[in-house]
Amino acid sequence: MSFSRPIQLNNTLLGAGKEPLVCTPLVGADEAAVLRELAVILPKRPDLLEWRVDFFAAIADTGRVVALARAICQQAGDIPLLFTRRSTREGGQPIPLDEDQVLALYAAVCRSGAVALCDYELSAGEAHFAQAVALARETGVCLVASFHNFHETPPAEALVAKFAAMEEAGADVVKIAVMPQSPRDVLTLLDATLTARETLAVPVISMAMGGYGAVSRLCGWVFGSSVSFAVGEQSSAPGQVPVEDVNRVVDVLQRAIAGR
Amino acid sequence: MSFSRPIQLNNTLLGAGKEPLVCTPLVGADEAAVLRELAVILPKRPDLLEWRVDFFAAIADTGRVVALARAICQQAGDIPLLFTRRSTREGGQPIPLDEDQVLALYAAVCRSGAVALCDYELSAGEAHFAQAVALARETGVCLVASFHNFHETPPAEALVAKFAAMEEAGADVVKIAVMPQSPRDVLTLLDATLTARETLAVPVISMAMGGYGAVSRLCGWVFGSSVSFAVGEQSSAPGQVPVEDVNRVVDVLQRAIAGR
Repeated sequence: MSFSRPIQLNNTLLGAGKEPLVCTPLVGADEAAVLRELAVILPKRPDLLEWRVDFFAAIADTGRVVALARAICQQAGDIPLLFTRRSTREGGQPIPLDEDQVLALYAAVCRSGAVALCDYELSAGEAHFAQAVALARETGVCLVASFHNFHETPPAEALVAKFAAMEEAGADVVKIAVMPQSPRDVLTLLDATLTARETLAVPVISMAMGGYGAVSRLCGWVFGSSVSFAVGEQSSAPGQVPVEDVNRVVDVLQRAIAGR
Repeated sequence: MSFSRPIQLNNTLLGAGKEPLVCTPLVGADEAAVLRELAVILPKRPDLLEWRVDFFAAIADTGRVVALARAICQQAGDIPLLFTRRSTREGGQPIPLDEDQVLALYAAVCRSGAVALCDYELSAGEAHFAQAVALARETGVCLVASFHNFHETPPAEALVAKFAAMEEAGADVVKIAVMPQSPRDVLTLLDATLTARETLAVPVISMAMGGYGAVSRLCGWVFGSSVSFAVGEQSSAPGQVPVEDVNRVVDVLQRAIAGR
């Protein structure tokens, strides 16, 4: 039984079709910190690694960014790397680059061959997003479009429209993270995820952040979310659960679903 | 943070206010089988035991039923006993008693002092249900009104109306179990649970049965369900998860909610 859509990378299914895929973030401020995190994370065998480059203090040094992407890629072996600059607008760290410089950095990293996926925010605007799409097409990197709301949870219709707009704009995968203000907001997020899963052709990723939002990180795959972001060494967003805990809960649910 | 309403028994909070409360069923066909189950279950420390008397072959022998209720009560120590005859209409076993005889059995068991709660179905009809309410008032036994649909999941409004009708009819606790035909039905059940939690004065129990319905057994407490029915030794309904697994998942969620 498959609840979520698999993510395809160069004609192979990421994680061999396993669901949910588990992605752990790397948030170190320098090479040593990132590689130390990586060494802690790799034995936990996530399906995907996300390098949050906005945490990297030397982000303005393209050479160092590309070199570190290559180093991560090499050590990660068959675990693909997702390259992400999260903007301050959407909960990321302040960086000394403007949006054109960010896109130039993305171009260098995608062309290096070290990353299999990159995350780019729809809120960057039409022109910038179109450049990210063109770059993804040119390099064969899988483009994850994302939208984050750290304050509240928009209505389900607004979330579904946002998912659809991201697919429409050319994304290969669409991702939404919201902050629930009540347990009902978690149901709203899951409901919108289910609708997007049923109506879009691309894989959907979603999560409600914060404490009880963790329900979505643990069970969201049953409602169509392809990836759960989980803590490998250090969390990158509120409510992220350790990867061991995600695996534990998914195992319980898988056995219940299989009737074992 | 308290998501579900606690269940009060003679001025003490069941499980000292822990959430969710975990209830494990006893489904043996004779005394030896029930006591064997009980011996396996007790070390797992559920908060509540449910004796499904419709599985008990000697259900027509009131003396044996009362004696076994007393034996369970004695061995269970401080774990309260919920006495339940599930009708064939709502997924139970065939029994050789008519409804008046069932109520006479309930009267004998409730008056014995061996049970702290009893479950009675709203579908038994107004007159019979009123007798169950009167019996509960007389004996101080907590009355759980229940409704089960093993085929489908009615719309959220219908579920909320059913919850309200059970409170209106005099129930101390209201319980609904449905069969989901799609993941969206699980969201419908959780949504109705949340509304009932917000609008009723009595504790609410709910579950979506079957495979992925297990999401509600594991996380339903975040949406207001006070009790999760879990397998101690043998399951009594489709999709019940072992009590160890429920505890494991609840622990993960509690830590996420506490930000640990």
